[in-house]
Amino acid sequence: MIAELKLDFLQFLETKIKSKEPKNLYDPITYILGLGGKKIRPLLTLMIADAFGEDYIKAMDAALAVEVFHNFTLIHDDIMDDAPLRRGNVTVHEKWDVNTGILSGDAVMIMAYQCFDKYESKTFKKLIQLFSKTALEVCEGQQLDVDFETRNDVTIEEYIKMISLKTSVLIACAMEFGAIIANADGENARKVYEFGLNLGIAFQLQDDYLDTFGNPETFGKQVGGDIIENKKTFLYLTALINAKNSDKVILKELYCTKLEENFNKIKQVKHIFESSGASEATLEEIKKYTNLAFENLKAIDIASEKKEFLKQFGQNLMQRNA
Amino acid sequence: MIAELKLDFLQFLETKIKSKEPKNLYDPITYILGLGGKKIRPLLTLMIADAFGEDYIKAMDAALAVEVFHNFTLIHDDIMDDAPLRRGNVTVHEKWDVNTGILSGDAVMIMAYQCFDKYESKTFKKLIQLFSKTALEVCEGQQLDVDFETRNDVTIEEYIKMISLKTSVLIACAMEFGAIIANADGENARKVYEFGLNLGIAFQLQDDYLDTFGNPETFGKQVGGDIIENKKTFLYLTALINAKNSDKVILKELYCTKLEENFNKIKQVKHIFESSGASEATLEEIKKYTNLAFENLKAIDIASEKKEFLKQFGQNLMQRNA
Repeated sequence: MIAELKLDFLQFLETKIKSKEPKNLYDPITYILGLGGKKIRPLLTLMIADAFGEDYIKAMDAALAVEVFHNFTLIHDDIMDDAPLRRGNVTVHEKWDVNTGILSGDAVMIMAYQCFDKYESKTFKKLIQLFSKTALEVCEGQQLDVDFETRNDVTIEEYIKMISLKTSVLIACAMEFGAIIANADGENARKVYEFGLNLGIAFQLQDDYLDTFGNPETFGKQVGGDIIENKKTFLYLTALINAKNSDKVILKELYCTKLEENFNKIKQVKHIFESSGASEATLEEIKKYTNLAFENLKAIDIASEKKEFLKQFGQNLMQRNA
Repeated sequence: MIAELKLDFLQFLETKIKSKEPKNLYDPITYILGLGGKKIRPLLTLMIADAFGEDYIKAMDAALAVEVFHNFTLIHDDIMDDAPLRRGNVTVHEKWDVNTGILSGDAVMIMAYQCFDKYESKTFKKLIQLFSKTALEVCEGQQLDVDFETRNDVTIEEYIKMISLKTSVLIACAMEFGAIIANADGENARKVYEFGLNLGIAFQLQDDYLDTFGNPETFGKQVGGDIIENKKTFLYLTALINAKNSDKVILKELYCTKLEENFNKIKQVKHIFESSGASEATLEEIKKYTNLAFENLKAIDIASEKKEFLKQFGQNLMQRNA
């Protein structure tokens, strides 16, 4: 059924992404929306609507809004991170330029808001309010991510808060959209949101793990990108606590550098992440949040086969390699 | 009454702009919202609501949305134009950095959407739909503005289209917000929008005129900024048609350069704008669109003293020096 949902969503997306004038504004949007990606967020919107017994076609526009907004964050984040690759292709600001990236990103965020137009006004208002709250939190998360680059006292708790804002709230929002459209009651909608929040944290920890230990052939982004950018991820923060003292010194020194050639830096850091047990601890943490998510799932008032289906999807997410 | 409206709006704005965490995200927003400015757009929202017999306090949130969105465009446009000054102060990306400007701009755009939260769902949907349509048009206008920098075949018609998108639609939207909140019928709302569109074109032509011929002491932005950036304004396009041939050659050559020191370039270009009659023609064009706007105003179904008041406001706008 996932394959069917994804196909339906991709066909819907295709009908919606038509480039128009001015081309320099809309071409980058068509480009990034056409780069593929896993479409996890929109699929979750559709799956939750379906789980509450609603025709998932009704959730298609809200699912699209989430996907379109996600692409806005990719364009602007890639500028801020000076990232060369996205989904295995050059990033928008590299293919065009920074100004084009800024403006196309702005436009695609507005287009996300326009995706809700078909919902009747009460549902429209609920969706938009959750969407704006979420969008602002995503910006706060991105800001914390930037702030952490120049701070040396980031705690693991702060890191979890940051990825919760930067990544999880959008996954939680995508899922609550499904509940809202299916007219689920407030209590169930809240539980769905919590489920998404924990699943999202597990997902981002997994993303961080793959950023360092993923397969360059399948990962889509530059493997080791977080190490190059000195991102204080769960891996890094845990290694700083658990590594032997000499390794802590090396790790801190390596994270003060920005190099042209990063092969040796990545190799050394990976070694410390492994020897300190930080990589193992990250896998444990992923399991912890996945299990929390599944606890939330249990409490939602939907048919047990729907729960099983959502659980399977979550489990597959945590075994992905891209 | 304008003074009273403005004071009320400024007090309302003050209660809304409180900086919060993360500071690097919200401080630039507090900064730019606190820089002053004429508040023309929100005042027009309030005036139109009042003109249709509605308590203008009800339009306060929508007026704020327009002002907040306008500040989003200022932050991002200033990055794209590499502008050093805004409202007589350093721009956000100069005071902080480009990444901060991008992200704070994103956040303030989302905050504009949140300003509508208090309206009941039917009005909320109407306002948001007009707002998103307008916001996307503003992006299109900004893109055309950027595109024109590297094109040598821009026509006056295309220029008017560009400023209509970049500036006028937001003024028209601000005014229609007032009509929507006052429950004006569709026909009157449409007329208000047309009034705003023409007033907005006159306003932007006036802005272009002041950019070249304004008083540096009062203008707030860098006088001659458009000339430095080789912007193909109405002044430039008209001079290219009407100047004597030798001046056309000089003008085209000057507009191929980007200089460190612009004193002489600005002086020469200003001279050609004057001797060719382009400056005079711009003042005529301002008059033309102002009169069109006042024709639209006549047809709106509101009390004649309200029309007079709106007309007076429009006339004052065209006699401003900042």
